[in-house]
Amino acid sequence: MSTKQIIVKKFGGSSVANIDRVKAVAKRIVDSKKRNNNIAVVVSAMGDTTDELEELAFNISKTPPDREMDMLMASGEQISASLLAMAVKALGHDSIALTGPQVGIKTDGSHTKAKIERISAKRIRDAFNANKIVIVAGYQGLNDNQDITTLGRGGSDLTAVALAVALKANVCEIYTDVEGIYTTDPRKVKTAKKLKKITFEEMLEMASLGAQVMQARSIEVAKKFNMPIHVRSSYSKAEGTMIMRRNTKMEEIAVQGVTSNKSEAKITINAVPDKAGIAAQLFNAVSKVGANVDIIVQNVSHKKLSDISFTVPKTDLTKALKATQTVAKKLKAGEVTSDKNIARVSVVGSGMRSHQGIAARMFETLAKNKINIDMISTSEISISCIINQKQTEKAMQVLHRAFIG
Amino acid sequence: MSTKQIIVKKFGGSSVANIDRVKAVAKRIVDSKKRNNNIAVVVSAMGDTTDELEELAFNISKTPPDREMDMLMASGEQISASLLAMAVKALGHDSIALTGPQVGIKTDGSHTKAKIERISAKRIRDAFNANKIVIVAGYQGLNDNQDITTLGRGGSDLTAVALAVALKANVCEIYTDVEGIYTTDPRKVKTAKKLKKITFEEMLEMASLGAQVMQARSIEVAKKFNMPIHVRSSYSKAEGTMIMRRNTKMEEIAVQGVTSNKSEAKITINAVPDKAGIAAQLFNAVSKVGANVDIIVQNVSHKKLSDISFTVPKTDLTKALKATQTVAKKLKAGEVTSDKNIARVSVVGSGMRSHQGIAARMFETLAKNKINIDMISTSEISISCIINQKQTEKAMQVLHRAFIG
Repeated sequence: MSTKQIIVKKFGGSSVANIDRVKAVAKRIVDSKKRNNNIAVVVSAMGDTTDELEELAFNISKTPPDREMDMLMASGEQISASLLAMAVKALGHDSIALTGPQVGIKTDGSHTKAKIERISAKRIRDAFNANKIVIVAGYQGLNDNQDITTLGRGGSDLTAVALAVALKANVCEIYTDVEGIYTTDPRKVKTAKKLKKITFEEMLEMASLGAQVMQARSIEVAKKFNMPIHVRSSYSKAEGTMIMRRNTKMEEIAVQGVTSNKSEAKITINAVPDKAGIAAQLFNAVSKVGANVDIIVQNVSHKKLSDISFTVPKTDLTKALKATQTVAKKLKAGEVTSDKNIARVSVVGSGMRSHQGIAARMFETLAKNKINIDMISTSEISISCIINQKQTEKAMQVLHRAFIG
Repeated sequence: MSTKQIIVKKFGGSSVANIDRVKAVAKRIVDSKKRNNNIAVVVSAMGDTTDELEELAFNISKTPPDREMDMLMASGEQISASLLAMAVKALGHDSIALTGPQVGIKTDGSHTKAKIERISAKRIRDAFNANKIVIVAGYQGLNDNQDITTLGRGGSDLTAVALAVALKANVCEIYTDVEGIYTTDPRKVKTAKKLKKITFEEMLEMASLGAQVMQARSIEVAKKFNMPIHVRSSYSKAEGTMIMRRNTKMEEIAVQGVTSNKSEAKITINAVPDKAGIAAQLFNAVSKVGANVDIIVQNVSHKKLSDISFTVPKTDLTKALKATQTVAKKLKAGEVTSDKNIARVSVVGSGMRSHQGIAARMFETLAKNKINIDMISTSEISISCIINQKQTEKAMQVLHRAFIG
């Protein structure tokens, strides 16, 4: 029996954007292999390849068929994986490149957003036994029709985590162009701090609230199978951030991070007659057109009329607005308005469960800085406020200063 | 039972070099489908994709591993096939793109130059039954290890012919940027004529003697299974050239074509002692280093010394020269010289079997035009002369005028 560690490493598109970077990644992999590990590397398409392929497709058809789209897009990772395997071999270490289908990544049939159903990984184990470094084309699998499927944008993260679970790896390392997970966006708040550790729950909450380091689905899978993830830099050897299960030794921190998100818009329907079942009627109509409603606020005014506001992703605004207007007419409600100039700022931390007064302190901090709160939403480990988009960075700065430093 | 014709069409890289050409090819395919045919289309990689991918690989490693090279190169056809299927669908006709492995093209294990062993083509037949146009990624297959293999340069021609045989197609159409097969290179001889028909044997001879329209291996397969090939233009609807089995109704033409080839070099070993077994010793040594010897001429001079000249591909010249020099030393022969400035001009035609005096007329024509003949080689249906490379085009012109017009 081997006592080697098994490590799955994932390198994103910018880490292999050109030949020199591919060579640098190869060097790093070989160094790690020399420390007596079995290494499987998941790689994304080089640089802008994915965007370029997508552009080709959309120049041919406004609605390219999903099946052929997957076949097209998967070629990007096939290219980067074969080149990376060549680069590893050129450094004198045996390696093998495998496509998702060759790895035995079986998915369901939903093209462009397939779900992994099972991974055999036999070829990877065989390659480990032959002391080879394995390079895997990320983001892709095979469905039962023997057709190539892809896992959606950011799918290489999912390939890496799922593969780490299948191989019973010790850790899944996600290499990226930042040094790890930060308390907030370092481009917007200079005092942003790199976190040493963060729990799966906190990371999920931060990802859903705007932090863009890792794909949320991958974190969910890692959480489910308790696979620790190490998010670290492709360009430095510094330790990054461990995403892991909360253990009793970890200090419970009230606020781990501050995030922002400008992808939502607000719809308001004014002067709605205040009768039972009206909200249900409205949100049924909106969800029927496929728009995801998030925060909802209802103000009952005098005269038994109320205003209802809710947020939807900006991409769903047109259809949601149309559906709302139709309902408003039926209900004989007032005007329907929309506002794209909103932003969500959030504070996230599992310590919130036990710490009192986080919400109050957040509202106070914003008020003191003349930032108006339009809507509020809370979860067990986060509090979000909808504010004017122009004040996003200021809000992040003052909240970071108030809670983190 | 269907009474539809089955047609396999192959479009080369320049025919799908950009989005507009992909759309034009799609239009042409759909038009053909409307004439009640079942259509399978084999497509090469777009434009210079193959060269670009090769360059990436050689920038990473001087000796990229063959297995990964195949995985890399096959992506080019995966891209063009999926885009072409999208373009067909955008015109309102259902289509499906398939990789070589998905088609069931099984090859032997020799990466970068694999041989097709069998084709199941079940998915193509299923798609025909569903009235779909099938787009196949050319040049690739799968070996028994479930690894992607490629068939060597020009391999898409082979995919098309082999698929036509497997599907019992009525014809295999090869679309290219010329109008068909010409009596000689139209860029060099203005009076070159497009041939309506040519036999497999003549086409093979012309291909091996320098005509570059189709890959020779594909013509061999077509000949073996008697699959007629229609070579025609991607850009016009004009009929091209049929490559087919000779039938008794076909007029036997003495000279169908004039070809030239500048890819050979000549090695001469002077003053070789005229003893038995010396030629064997020499050519054993040369073939051991992997050089392909073609024409051999031996002149016995006085004093029991002879000069031996032979031709090899220019790419083999260095190693062949080295091997020859070693043998010359052993044999105590004279100087070894080489000459790259040679060319081969040939006349080809199956009518040569029955027509007398073709050789005499060829030598006469060259002599009259002061073109010196250095070496001569003949086959059943061709005569080749090695001449000074500078006189190649002149030789082609005078031979074309003498034999064809």
